[in-house]
Amino acid sequence: MGRKVFGVDIGGTTVKMGLFTDQGELLDKWEIPTRTENGGENILPDIAASIREKIDSGDFGIGDVAGIGLSVPGPVDDSGIVHKCVNLGWGEFDISHKMREYIDLPVFAGNDANAAALGEVWKGGGRGCRNVVVVTLGTGVGGGIIVNGKVLSGSIGAGGEIGHIHINDDETEKCGCGKKGCLEQYGSATGIARMASAALAASDEPSVLRNAELLDAKAVFDAVKAGDKLASEVAERFGEILGKGLSIVADVTNPEMFVIGGGVSRAGQIVLDLIQKNYLKYVFHGSSGTEFVLATLGNDAGIYGSAKLVLDGVACS
Amino acid sequence: MGRKVFGVDIGGTTVKMGLFTDQGELLDKWEIPTRTENGGENILPDIAASIREKIDSGDFGIGDVAGIGLSVPGPVDDSGIVHKCVNLGWGEFDISHKMREYIDLPVFAGNDANAAALGEVWKGGGRGCRNVVVVTLGTGVGGGIIVNGKVLSGSIGAGGEIGHIHINDDETEKCGCGKKGCLEQYGSATGIARMASAALAASDEPSVLRNAELLDAKAVFDAVKAGDKLASEVAERFGEILGKGLSIVADVTNPEMFVIGGGVSRAGQIVLDLIQKNYLKYVFHGSSGTEFVLATLGNDAGIYGSAKLVLDGVACS
Repeated sequence: MGRKVFGVDIGGTTVKMGLFTDQGELLDKWEIPTRTENGGENILPDIAASIREKIDSGDFGIGDVAGIGLSVPGPVDDSGIVHKCVNLGWGEFDISHKMREYIDLPVFAGNDANAAALGEVWKGGGRGCRNVVVVTLGTGVGGGIIVNGKVLSGSIGAGGEIGHIHINDDETEKCGCGKKGCLEQYGSATGIARMASAALAASDEPSVLRNAELLDAKAVFDAVKAGDKLASEVAERFGEILGKGLSIVADVTNPEMFVIGGGVSRAGQIVLDLIQKNYLKYVFHGSSGTEFVLATLGNDAGIYGSAKLVLDGVACS
Repeated sequence: MGRKVFGVDIGGTTVKMGLFTDQGELLDKWEIPTRTENGGENILPDIAASIREKIDSGDFGIGDVAGIGLSVPGPVDDSGIVHKCVNLGWGEFDISHKMREYIDLPVFAGNDANAAALGEVWKGGGRGCRNVVVVTLGTGVGGGIIVNGKVLSGSIGAGGEIGHIHINDDETEKCGCGKKGCLEQYGSATGIARMASAALAASDEPSVLRNAELLDAKAVFDAVKAGDKLASEVAERFGEILGKGLSIVADVTNPEMFVIGGGVSRAGQIVLDLIQKNYLKYVFHGSSGTEFVLATLGNDAGIYGSAKLVLDGVACS
């Protein structure tokens, strides 16, 4: 029997947990609530207790466990220091050291976006590739860059912040980061809804979106598939700006593949087509062969990536 | 006595060669002509002969040499395959294998821009840093990205192609790559001269540049230092576009430092100031602390980086 690994993805409301073989087979997954009160002091003990319970009820002992991987919603440096997780109430501390007060197993920690990217490359859409950019189109636009199989975390853990690359000089509205014209103002679910809303306000053109109960990215892509002209224009602008942005990311990192995930990607192939068509207009020829695929692990990417942190035996900020 | 290393930078007209200690001290440097005739078949034998001569006339034997690093003006993949060097007349071949037909020493090869970046990080402006972007402002804009001390070469050696990131939607002239609006159309020596020429043609504004014997980047920066208004506007546009472009590179890679080299950088601190001022307007806060310094190795960066390839014991495409 091979060794076991726990992959733990700590979110603001729930902690997702997975038990893996050391070959990356997911044996079991479950969730526990994230108790953020009192500076999040219960989060690590709760995780340790849940892991201990799983070991006690299983057919293996603590000696069969290679370690615990933790992904946290904030920057983690290469020495395993968490630099602040506002959502969890956490300040700065050595998470690996702290976790070992509750359970005596090797602990490896990383940022959640980067761990999710690592998961997709290990067992998801980017499987088998060594140079991949994983792009998550959700509330914002997140990025995880894998170079030679490892996360590019940068000097202080701010690598892969592709949602905030400056892409439009003419923007008048502010991004959440305080600047204007960031990629995620157009490429995220929020950005698509914002553009759709502006397009509806700017004309009297008929569109099924005028009757949409909820004007979100799903409504826009459903309307595109139904042949709605206004929705198609919004989707084209999404593809134009995201394709241009990702062309720049590729000129810098020359990945073999972009893995596109997050809520927006649920619209499927149409999203890839819109991005890739525009990407090819802008990218340097050295990266024109880069593939575009959909992410496949969904919400499990984080637990997979966390488990991989243990198997790689390194911290990942 | 420590071991010796040869660092060799193969250019289209001359081959620069350096003899180093394994601590990176440059003991001797010299040049030989690059004989490109007959598909460049003499280049490697000439280098081997020159190295052998240096060994024979020195106080050390071939057994004291750790290896030879070769930097070539074209893509080299991680397995040491050169994929074409138009300037040298070379096609596709295993350079390390070929070189060993002429001299029996370990050979490591890499692309010249990337090797130069490695040199600057090892012994130049980026000394002591592990995450650095080296930007060469010459005829074009070249980039070498160092992540955790290693070159980011990408999936097929096209990483760091920052001269061709798309930065301006309104450009009407074509870049050498065939696209319009690439960073190097504004950030290179050529780009600065082009912008100055256009600015002079667009108005009757008096400027010392109207009498310049040669309207090049040096003339523009000299005029800026002398308080010329038109030249200052050109320099501002250079800084605005390059600062914006490098902010994107930083959002992706989060370096601790940008090392700025190439002919344009000879204008000195003013170049760094122009870039950094604009960089800060656009960059995500996670990379706002990134430093800007001047390159220090000049034309020797390539031989230093080539020597480092040997000491790192890895190919660098």
